[in-house]
Amino acid sequence: MRRYGIMLVAASCLILTKNALLRAEADDSPAKKAIQQVLDDQQTAWNKGDLEEFMVGYWKSDDLSFYSGGDKTKGWQATLERYQKKYQGEGKEMGTLSFSELEISVAGADNAVVRGRWQLKLKDGKTMGGLYTLWLRKLPEGWRIVHDHTSKAD
Amino acid sequence: MRRYGIMLVAASCLILTKNALLRAEADDSPAKKAIQQVLDDQQTAWNKGDLEEFMVGYWKSDDLSFYSGGDKTKGWQATLERYQKKYQGEGKEMGTLSFSELEISVAGADNAVVRGRWQLKLKDGKTMGGLYTLWLRKLPEGWRIVHDHTSKAD
Repeated sequence: MRRYGIMLVAASCLILTKNALLRAEADDSPAKKAIQQVLDDQQTAWNKGDLEEFMVGYWKSDDLSFYSGGDKTKGWQATLERYQKKYQGEGKEMGTLSFSELEISVAGADNAVVRGRWQLKLKDGKTMGGLYTLWLRKLPEGWRIVHDHTSKAD
Repeated sequence: MRRYGIMLVAASCLILTKNALLRAEADDSPAKKAIQQVLDDQQTAWNKGDLEEFMVGYWKSDDLSFYSGGDKTKGWQATLERYQKKYQGEGKEMGTLSFSELEISVAGADNAVVRGRWQLKLKDGKTMGGLYTLWLRKLPEGWRIVHDHTSKAD
């Protein structure tokens, strides 16, 4: 009787572990697609000039963090205001944004690191660009950027 | 008998889950300490002028990635050579490195994101610095930086 109980527990645990592993593997592709969608939506929103819509990709929290050069911005609202000042202020323009060289790495069930290159094409034909590293978390509202580190080419 | 077996399985699974959760929580602190040590060792190695020792903190792989400004460097060897050229080349100096404002976020069992500020104090008293975001993975050899995004203050 005791041996039967132990074997039953052992077998159940093996099955549970195997299912968890298979689920983690299968999740990989839908997670990548969902993250790709977040970035596609950001690009579309930017190119419509809609910064609030662009900001949907970010975690709507005071703990959102945004690094650029030597400057830290903390919180969703402050990050929106930084973008507004930098790209919608007097004499500024949003330009046309494109992302390229995207690498989406899902890390465990609810974390991902995304690397890529950004480019802005301005009205006068000039371009500016650089690299970014994003940390995303799978939250109840979907995959959201919780930390963004952006740098500009010299 | 059947009901007894099912209850035994259910109880065992509850205990296993609870232990796994407690372990994840308890792991948090040793993981953070181990990661802190990797960064402390890097700082010490840099300030001894030992770049090979500094590079121990990085994943020794052709897939290591290093982003700075608009430039990507791929692979451990290429990253070492970038540091050698930039800080040990003719007329260059390594200066004194310090890390500050460190935030270590463990994400699941074997991933972590580290954010911080770097500063180099040069012989002439000038300083340069900026921010970094690191993605670390727990590998058989220990926690290692698999991706580094560094930016410089303007």
